[in-house]
Amino acid sequence: MSAGNLRINAERLQCRLQALADIGAIDGGGCCRLALTDDDRRGRDQVVAWMRELGLQVQVDAIGNVFGLRAGLRDLPPVMSGSHIDTVRTGGRFDGNLGVLGALEVVQTLNDAGVQTERPLVVAFFTNEEGARFAPDMLGSLVYAGGLPLAQALEVRAIDGARLGDELVRIGYAGAAPIGVYQPHAFVELHVEQGPVLDAEGITIGAVEDLQGISWQELSITGQSNHAGTTPMRLRHDAGYAAAAVSHFVRGLTRDMGAGQVATVGKIDLHPNLINVIAARAKLTVDLRNTDEALLQQAEARLAEFLETLARDEGVEITSRRLARFEPVCFDAAVVQQIERVTQRLGYPQRRMTSGAGHDAQMLARICPSAMIFVPSTKGISHNPAEHTAEADIAAGGNVLLHTLLELAQQEN
Amino acid sequence: MSAGNLRINAERLQCRLQALADIGAIDGGGCCRLALTDDDRRGRDQVVAWMRELGLQVQVDAIGNVFGLRAGLRDLPPVMSGSHIDTVRTGGRFDGNLGVLGALEVVQTLNDAGVQTERPLVVAFFTNEEGARFAPDMLGSLVYAGGLPLAQALEVRAIDGARLGDELVRIGYAGAAPIGVYQPHAFVELHVEQGPVLDAEGITIGAVEDLQGISWQELSITGQSNHAGTTPMRLRHDAGYAAAAVSHFVRGLTRDMGAGQVATVGKIDLHPNLINVIAARAKLTVDLRNTDEALLQQAEARLAEFLETLARDEGVEITSRRLARFEPVCFDAAVVQQIERVTQRLGYPQRRMTSGAGHDAQMLARICPSAMIFVPSTKGISHNPAEHTAEADIAAGGNVLLHTLLELAQQEN
Repeated sequence: MSAGNLRINAERLQCRLQALADIGAIDGGGCCRLALTDDDRRGRDQVVAWMRELGLQVQVDAIGNVFGLRAGLRDLPPVMSGSHIDTVRTGGRFDGNLGVLGALEVVQTLNDAGVQTERPLVVAFFTNEEGARFAPDMLGSLVYAGGLPLAQALEVRAIDGARLGDELVRIGYAGAAPIGVYQPHAFVELHVEQGPVLDAEGITIGAVEDLQGISWQELSITGQSNHAGTTPMRLRHDAGYAAAAVSHFVRGLTRDMGAGQVATVGKIDLHPNLINVIAARAKLTVDLRNTDEALLQQAEARLAEFLETLARDEGVEITSRRLARFEPVCFDAAVVQQIERVTQRLGYPQRRMTSGAGHDAQMLARICPSAMIFVPSTKGISHNPAEHTAEADIAAGGNVLLHTLLELAQQEN
Repeated sequence: MSAGNLRINAERLQCRLQALADIGAIDGGGCCRLALTDDDRRGRDQVVAWMRELGLQVQVDAIGNVFGLRAGLRDLPPVMSGSHIDTVRTGGRFDGNLGVLGALEVVQTLNDAGVQTERPLVVAFFTNEEGARFAPDMLGSLVYAGGLPLAQALEVRAIDGARLGDELVRIGYAGAAPIGVYQPHAFVELHVEQGPVLDAEGITIGAVEDLQGISWQELSITGQSNHAGTTPMRLRHDAGYAAAAVSHFVRGLTRDMGAGQVATVGKIDLHPNLINVIAARAKLTVDLRNTDEALLQQAEARLAEFLETLARDEGVEITSRRLARFEPVCFDAAVVQQIERVTQRLGYPQRRMTSGAGHDAQMLARICPSAMIFVPSTKGISHNPAEHTAEADIAAGGNVLLHTLLELAQQEN
């Protein structure tokens, strides 16, 4: 059997997904394995055991990232693949896990077929990708890529007060390997889309070419509480209306700026929040995302301009607090094209796409050519026990990952 | 001294306002005398004691409304004046109390001057005007005017579970007088504006010619929770945006329909109310008011039409629950003109105006010619310990009430 005809064992991959989902299982088929909890430790132990069964050389680094090395024919920088196995509190069974277990399945497929690669392969999982217990999210891969000093990361406190460094020691994952133990030749992450695009369009594979920049603001609006009946419209300073006007404005902004711009006001709190009282205060969040940094800055500027006009027109005070700001990430064009070529050869419907969520691959993109493979999320549901990806789509994603890694691992340069 | 030159004793009125405010006093200078509580009983006992000191014949009816009669020269239907002494939980010292103690001060002024009127005068205070403990508000005057059967009103449960009829007995105000014990010749209520118009315009007296109709709805919007980054705008069913769009729409509606129409979205609750999640559900309230019933119906119809379009465009489900609906009330043109003539003679700046809040006078308007006299509320602040009306304005209101009642009490028909 030539390597070009290799296929992963989809059933075996499903078994591992099921076995990992049983650890920290919650009602509805989902998982709760918050980073560095006992359930996370049990999940880690299981994956490490599988790595060892497959003959991988396991290393754990100082921030708890775990790497399983399959040697190559030559001593070249390895091709790395992986993701994370921590989950949010009401997580699904695919988010992150698929990328780690998919890469493990690739290794086992190569083992079974006796295929040796020129470059080593490394299967990785990174600490605290979700950010549900420790901030920031993607912490392990961020430290790995040099974006956050180790010493600072170890001091991070969990939402439950625990120190990250202490929790690593407690669960036995404060490893001996240095940060950046491998300088990869390339990094590829298989992941569920967590959005509705592939499912809605009936497409199996997304070749992820970029990742949206994120701008998060919290707006605080101060108006004046007054009687909803006795106060003429012209004398109102209605913080509730101003909040609604922001939501209405950003929707219009997305229409003006086209499909690359998304905007969400997901959180609005009014005070006193009563039917017959004009709101004195409002707090709301604005989530702006764009794949183009210049356009994202334009969206921020247009919002700022609108807020000034709104404050003046309504006689309210508006202050803004920045909660997060990440520039967009462009994945490596050559790796993306390689994913496309492989997908075409395998005969799966595909499209290029943008990731609207953050992923470890965006951190690895700082230090090596990187890209991602998306498979559909049914109805786009994610961070929810109902998260689902069809078996055929998982098989397809695994096979695209297999051949993408195989080709990368044969590259001379 | 001729009756035309009579003036109330403004200092004495201030003393009574202070003494009543001391009962159930709360921080900041306000009052908490929820209807039929022990504090309400102490307030009632005080006012009844003053009525008796002034020689009034006190009657309490079966719903706890209290009446103090000053006999006239002739046995004609009396002229009635009054308001309420119950307060909201964070009430001011003027709302309601001024109308009752102002009428008492009129009686004492007439007593002191030895003025006898043709018609009897009745000073009244009505049970549970605020509706802060029992629903509906204006309950005592509503029962008095025949709008709610006594038996049904006695069964009403408080927010603390107590039965209204039991509470009346408990505080000793389940009276022997039948409902509708007096059929008034006219009713005049002195009240603080509870809105900013008089204060903003520097005007002392408002001759209230009508009272807004009220339409309260609670809207429930069901969309679909999704990732704020990965979900393209065209695939969203954003209940949070839809809620904001309603607030934005009703603001536009008030611009279209002119100053008679006011609209408020004072309460918005999103679910899950998170920065990076498109809201699955929203609940919001819409408060529409107009002095013209046909226009109020037009506003309701235009909102309903907008909600249909919005639901279709956004792919969300919107249901509406009616929380309250009162038709506008027109006060008696002759009584309003009389207030205007008196005010002009006394030399106070005045204007006609609309009440945006509900008052006992709107219930009395069902059974006799009625109108209201408004005095300014500083900055429009109401239902708040900071509620304030300047002493000079209180004196002016008392004098307008005095001469309006005097004239009405001399009328043959």
